[in-house]
Amino acid sequence: MQNFIFENPTKILFGQGQISLTGKEVARFGRKVLLVYGLKSIKKNGIYDRVMASLQEAGLNIVEFPGVKSNPVLSHTLKGIALAREEQVEVVLAVGGGSVIDTAKTIAAGVKADHDVWDLFTYKKPIRSALPVVTVLTLAASASEMNAAAVMTREEGLQKFSIRSPHIQPRVSILDPTVLYTLSPAYSAFSAVDAITHMLEPYFNNAEPDSPFQDRLVECFMRTIMESAEVILREPANYPARANMMWATTWAFNGLTSAGMGMVSLPVHMIEHSLSAIYDIAHGAGLSIVLPGWMRYTLDRNTRKLSRLAREIFLISEKDERLAAMAGIGKLKAWFADIGSPTSLKEAGIPEEDIDKIAENASVLAQVWQLKGYTKEVIADILQQCR
Amino acid sequence: MQNFIFENPTKILFGQGQISLTGKEVARFGRKVLLVYGLKSIKKNGIYDRVMASLQEAGLNIVEFPGVKSNPVLSHTLKGIALAREEQVEVVLAVGGGSVIDTAKTIAAGVKADHDVWDLFTYKKPIRSALPVVTVLTLAASASEMNAAAVMTREEGLQKFSIRSPHIQPRVSILDPTVLYTLSPAYSAFSAVDAITHMLEPYFNNAEPDSPFQDRLVECFMRTIMESAEVILREPANYPARANMMWATTWAFNGLTSAGMGMVSLPVHMIEHSLSAIYDIAHGAGLSIVLPGWMRYTLDRNTRKLSRLAREIFLISEKDERLAAMAGIGKLKAWFADIGSPTSLKEAGIPEEDIDKIAENASVLAQVWQLKGYTKEVIADILQQCR
Repeated sequence: MQNFIFENPTKILFGQGQISLTGKEVARFGRKVLLVYGLKSIKKNGIYDRVMASLQEAGLNIVEFPGVKSNPVLSHTLKGIALAREEQVEVVLAVGGGSVIDTAKTIAAGVKADHDVWDLFTYKKPIRSALPVVTVLTLAASASEMNAAAVMTREEGLQKFSIRSPHIQPRVSILDPTVLYTLSPAYSAFSAVDAITHMLEPYFNNAEPDSPFQDRLVECFMRTIMESAEVILREPANYPARANMMWATTWAFNGLTSAGMGMVSLPVHMIEHSLSAIYDIAHGAGLSIVLPGWMRYTLDRNTRKLSRLAREIFLISEKDERLAAMAGIGKLKAWFADIGSPTSLKEAGIPEEDIDKIAENASVLAQVWQLKGYTKEVIADILQQCR
Repeated sequence: MQNFIFENPTKILFGQGQISLTGKEVARFGRKVLLVYGLKSIKKNGIYDRVMASLQEAGLNIVEFPGVKSNPVLSHTLKGIALAREEQVEVVLAVGGGSVIDTAKTIAAGVKADHDVWDLFTYKKPIRSALPVVTVLTLAASASEMNAAAVMTREEGLQKFSIRSPHIQPRVSILDPTVLYTLSPAYSAFSAVDAITHMLEPYFNNAEPDSPFQDRLVECFMRTIMESAEVILREPANYPARANMMWATTWAFNGLTSAGMGMVSLPVHMIEHSLSAIYDIAHGAGLSIVLPGWMRYTLDRNTRKLSRLAREIFLISEKDERLAAMAGIGKLKAWFADIGSPTSLKEAGIPEEDIDKIAENASVLAQVWQLKGYTKEVIADILQQCR
């Protein structure tokens, strides 16, 4: 176990009906709230009305900022920052999934920044403060509801970068599994892929060889996510399955599985960011394309851990570590396909000829994230495994 | 999954050398600190000197309150409250294990109480505020370093009761696994028993039949604790084993494994509290006596879960659930014996004739904790299984 600091103060209100407490929780942080949300889905499924009713009951002054799209973009977020400043809001409420929450976090930090907001994403400037953020989660995948990170795409240069600071960590997050009942099968599948990748990256890319605690946690959450996803695809309104999935995805990327693992890197995310930045595909869809290819590419380096995953998750009894590892990669890829997430560039309509362009784009983030060894050429070789 | 609120804001500084940050962390909460500790062990192993050096370096004003013993008693704690008031300390620092931390928590709440402190333990009065608590952990077992509870024995009537409030939850806890190197084999074993019991109580005694997330967490932590304990008993200064044990025991009882399980009860703790209150035995020793007996007593009620534990932890393949459950109980009891923790009243020198007296004592706490069905007679029947 490497030395670490663990601190995760987000208060979670979990369960059916908890949305009615939104107003009361938001009111702890201010009287004027910026309500950040996406497109039409929360109006269709009634969540918008439930949140508004709760905010109004608490007597709050509401400023609406809708229109966040998947793979949220800086230009839109800058409008949110301008609105938040103009209206002098005191707290930011995100009602949505990772894209909406990340937009809310960026607005919360951006309001306090007297410089180019993108400098926060290139790490040229630190985040020194932020407005308090509260969330009502409507898509369980990113764990943004209980972590300190946010991802944003700048259209200029198609750069999908991220920030991380305790200042933007949500103070309160409300998780009601019933809001997931209307989520499409495709997005239910992408959520599972996203959460699994969040855990497998530190599982493979860390500085700690002796990590039974964290390894078992990952395997425990992964089993829960896989079995829940399978139930959800058959029965979208199965409460226990939605609830277990929602809670497991939160813990998949809230700091626990990587605490003690030393420096952890996220090369699969790094490469996927280029796919969703350039082609605007769902993040989960991009991850199910890149992860198996990346695993195959790192087979020699990660044989032991890949064979452990094969044994623990897919019950592969093959004694030869390399063969077991390869079988495990095959099983994971097949499972992604089974739940309906793409597993090749081709399937997502991304032409093989673009590989160099994608690698070029990803290599910029590799530098920002200081992912040594991930040159343009290496990234292109990995992408060759994802055709 | 039942509805729940999860909030655990304790900041953890984990790893070798972190004790040097004690002063800096304490200074965030005040300039005058009450330093609570036990008997001689922290002076022998050098921890006292390291903590003092850090507090002095931070320029803090230190008021010492030593003398906490295992199974801490109210009379001593009341002296701490008087001293804290007299000296007008602003923050309480516990350097020790569960007994020291629980004393610090009770002092922190007691200073603010203008009534009989014991009323907090009988739930006649609520905890409305407390001084901030910081801890340096020297015995990993209770999880008190990252939870909101404290246990205390009142000598009058030999009542070992508990309190729970977010106000007494440590703000910061410092966990350095190397401080455990000098812990005796007996206390290393008792720590494992304590942490395992913390998890198995909610595993068996909850209101949620569908809990794959929590069940797997318990099994994951339990495997880590058992394998770490076995290494520690052979190699007391094995860093990875001490570190994995330390971190797993914290998570065994910090709220995660019971969140979503609905109303959870702790009957084994309830009965054990009488053993350690009356006979002053180590809490872990008492638990390894009571837990297997309680499991046998509840065999019919808990067959399914007991057989799951047998399968998951002890790899018992017996198909008959009842036989598997019984085999699992036997294996757990044998493991407790293997690591050197007593598994019968007799072994701890507690005469069979005292069973009625113990049951009488425990039934008082059963009422305070509202453990329905745990009459004096039922408790005596359970204790018969622990002879």
